[in-house]
Amino acid sequence: MLQRYCQQPSIAAQQVGIAETVRLVKEMAKQAGGEVSVFDDCGGNPVICAEFAAGPRGNRDKTLLFYNHYDVQPPEPLDEWTYPPFGAEIHDGKVFARGAADNKGDLTVRLQAIIALRENGGLPCNVKFLIEGEEEIGSPSLPAYLEKYADQFKADACIWEFGGKNMDGQPQMVAGIKGMCYLQLWCHGADVDLHSSNGAIVDNAAWRLVQALASMKSVDHRILVDGFYEDVASLTPELVQYAEEQPFHAERMKEHLGLRRPLISGDENPNLHLWYAPTMTICGIESGYTGDGSKTVLPRRAQAKLDCRLVPNQDPDDILEKVRRHLHRHGFTDVEVSQVNGERAYRSEMNHPFVRMVKETAREAYGVEAVMAPTSAGTGPMYPFGEYLGHSLPIVSTGCGWWNSRAHAPDESIRIEDFEQAMLHMVLLLNRFGETQG
Amino acid sequence: MLQRYCQQPSIAAQQVGIAETVRLVKEMAKQAGGEVSVFDDCGGNPVICAEFAAGPRGNRDKTLLFYNHYDVQPPEPLDEWTYPPFGAEIHDGKVFARGAADNKGDLTVRLQAIIALRENGGLPCNVKFLIEGEEEIGSPSLPAYLEKYADQFKADACIWEFGGKNMDGQPQMVAGIKGMCYLQLWCHGADVDLHSSNGAIVDNAAWRLVQALASMKSVDHRILVDGFYEDVASLTPELVQYAEEQPFHAERMKEHLGLRRPLISGDENPNLHLWYAPTMTICGIESGYTGDGSKTVLPRRAQAKLDCRLVPNQDPDDILEKVRRHLHRHGFTDVEVSQVNGERAYRSEMNHPFVRMVKETAREAYGVEAVMAPTSAGTGPMYPFGEYLGHSLPIVSTGCGWWNSRAHAPDESIRIEDFEQAMLHMVLLLNRFGETQG
Repeated sequence: MLQRYCQQPSIAAQQVGIAETVRLVKEMAKQAGGEVSVFDDCGGNPVICAEFAAGPRGNRDKTLLFYNHYDVQPPEPLDEWTYPPFGAEIHDGKVFARGAADNKGDLTVRLQAIIALRENGGLPCNVKFLIEGEEEIGSPSLPAYLEKYADQFKADACIWEFGGKNMDGQPQMVAGIKGMCYLQLWCHGADVDLHSSNGAIVDNAAWRLVQALASMKSVDHRILVDGFYEDVASLTPELVQYAEEQPFHAERMKEHLGLRRPLISGDENPNLHLWYAPTMTICGIESGYTGDGSKTVLPRRAQAKLDCRLVPNQDPDDILEKVRRHLHRHGFTDVEVSQVNGERAYRSEMNHPFVRMVKETAREAYGVEAVMAPTSAGTGPMYPFGEYLGHSLPIVSTGCGWWNSRAHAPDESIRIEDFEQAMLHMVLLLNRFGETQG
Repeated sequence: MLQRYCQQPSIAAQQVGIAETVRLVKEMAKQAGGEVSVFDDCGGNPVICAEFAAGPRGNRDKTLLFYNHYDVQPPEPLDEWTYPPFGAEIHDGKVFARGAADNKGDLTVRLQAIIALRENGGLPCNVKFLIEGEEEIGSPSLPAYLEKYADQFKADACIWEFGGKNMDGQPQMVAGIKGMCYLQLWCHGADVDLHSSNGAIVDNAAWRLVQALASMKSVDHRILVDGFYEDVASLTPELVQYAEEQPFHAERMKEHLGLRRPLISGDENPNLHLWYAPTMTICGIESGYTGDGSKTVLPRRAQAKLDCRLVPNQDPDDILEKVRRHLHRHGFTDVEVSQVNGERAYRSEMNHPFVRMVKETAREAYGVEAVMAPTSAGTGPMYPFGEYLGHSLPIVSTGCGWWNSRAHAPDESIRIEDFEQAMLHMVLLLNRFGETQG
């Protein structure tokens, strides 16, 4: 099932293979015994709902929701892959494919766990799946489907799409996610590119954008946009403790990624920054001539992409307004800004019994201590799940990846050993969840 | 002759048509009666030397040197041309072609003037041409040829490659040229692009480069590199007068180019800045993802191209060192800088009789007051002419272009009327030059 699924391209950004993938996922869920509905009446790629009723000895009062996505990132650059990105070849105990780790492996793990449980007496609780097809392009249509079909997706707890083993071999899970305010900035200086000798009298879109960006973040990484931090709650001792409990292998990370500079967290535990600090990252900047050699041009336009990771209570629309006000206040009225996409952060209550249960069953399945972080440093559409299914919905993300799974990059892979342990974890979790009362 | 020459592609950057063009230019110069040598023993594209002796009644003690180049800029973007770039089609009294204004029209003007003089009693003085083929890529090989063949190119005065009519219909000439220090800056942060959620702990090459650039120039256009201005001579009243005598149509320029911002010269005459102020212009900057929509990437590298136009006494190698020291002093030890090319400024003595003669004969040929500026805002390889042929060599640039000739841009053109006036100017100048003594 895993190889067949990984061999099917499903690239949302390029609209490749979407219809075929929807048919395949539907068939896979049906094979596992599910009732499948495909919703396509709120725009975008279809959202698949698969429902599995508790077995005869199962708990019909408890419903677990799984969130997955069938779309994957584009496989480019193709020449950097050792194995074909949609070949799903197995080498050294790993399955190599675009989407193996993000997120086709996890859907397969979960369906296999359900098949196993059904073959051994039936499901211990009700199970639902929400499988969308636009996660890799920011889930633009998902909130509309969640709002319209909230009753269909209602559940007592939710297992999120991803996760994997860290460098120490521990399963790493998160109970929340950061938000996002992705901005595009651009500056137009003239109708045409000019000869650069005009730099003596004509203002330059590239310089304007560089100066505007520099005004927004200090060299020591403080975001200088007025009020940027005002909705950020101060850290509780409990949150600090979670971060400090988890070791961070800074040197190994620096070596593995070839980092040239010290981590900006300095002497502090990097988890404190990764989990709790909002960010402002230049994802891209472009202006003028950037080919070989020299071209003496004064560029007419410049653009930049800026990714702000947000923490709970920060609102992406509010951040956009603050950036806009900052630019005006500093005289950069010629620099325009718009939001490409925005998502709010979400955090489950760390003391919720479900959160503790996921961690405990992980320890049992994997045979090592599991790590539960209050949040991922990354982003995903968790907030609308809370918004439409209930703000107290506990959501935990766990999955079959590993620390070098290379999601979004060439040679994405999962390890078959991890796949099997993740499946065992899901079996244990569903059993334990079915035993809970109230 | 003009159309044939303009139809011959000769793109130095792409090494297109160089050999064919050298043959064609050789043939054109021979047709005009010249002795032609082709030098190719100092690397790069060949340098053509054409010599024409004074006629029987001419002054054999006086030699005028013409500097031209046979190479042109690449014609791209091709789809923005109204007429084919190497078609040399004539429409509305204009010849449209890549290189028509820069600089094939001027070579043809000069050869036609020589043909006319030779048909009417012979040349009034000796004439030489230096025609190189790498001007559009920064003339890297020219100094070596000038050094080796200095005796062959020795002359009493030099007419430079370009010029044209300004918006008021006056011939606009220059007696000097700015220098250039073209720099490439780059910053490497990691071996791989990272997921942008790492922005909370990992330094970002794009931010580093933006901050480094912002440290080098203030929002009000002051270059902040220590010592950048230290070799700049203060303006003499004479230089100020030249600048202020010449009107500058700021509003027309702003409208024509669609400039969004006020000129940075403020209330001052823009000529003061264009002619006398060194500059630092971002010609290009690039990092990360700049396509449509969003990609949440933390880019591993960033690069920028920076063009500094220099004034007399500034040394491009010294400017490179100052930028390097500035970056280190401000902690940007991870930002590397190298020089792509460098040229020093050159200025003829404005009171030299030859400079005055070019201006006077222009007034006679064009029937309007001519404008002689001490320098162009642009750059060219004038300095090595002084270095190898004598630092007191008077060099004046004049040509057959017009204010909207669009050199380096699509729809480059010259007007046939201007071509004829420029030819008359050259005839008058050669005659007057032949009459000078001593």
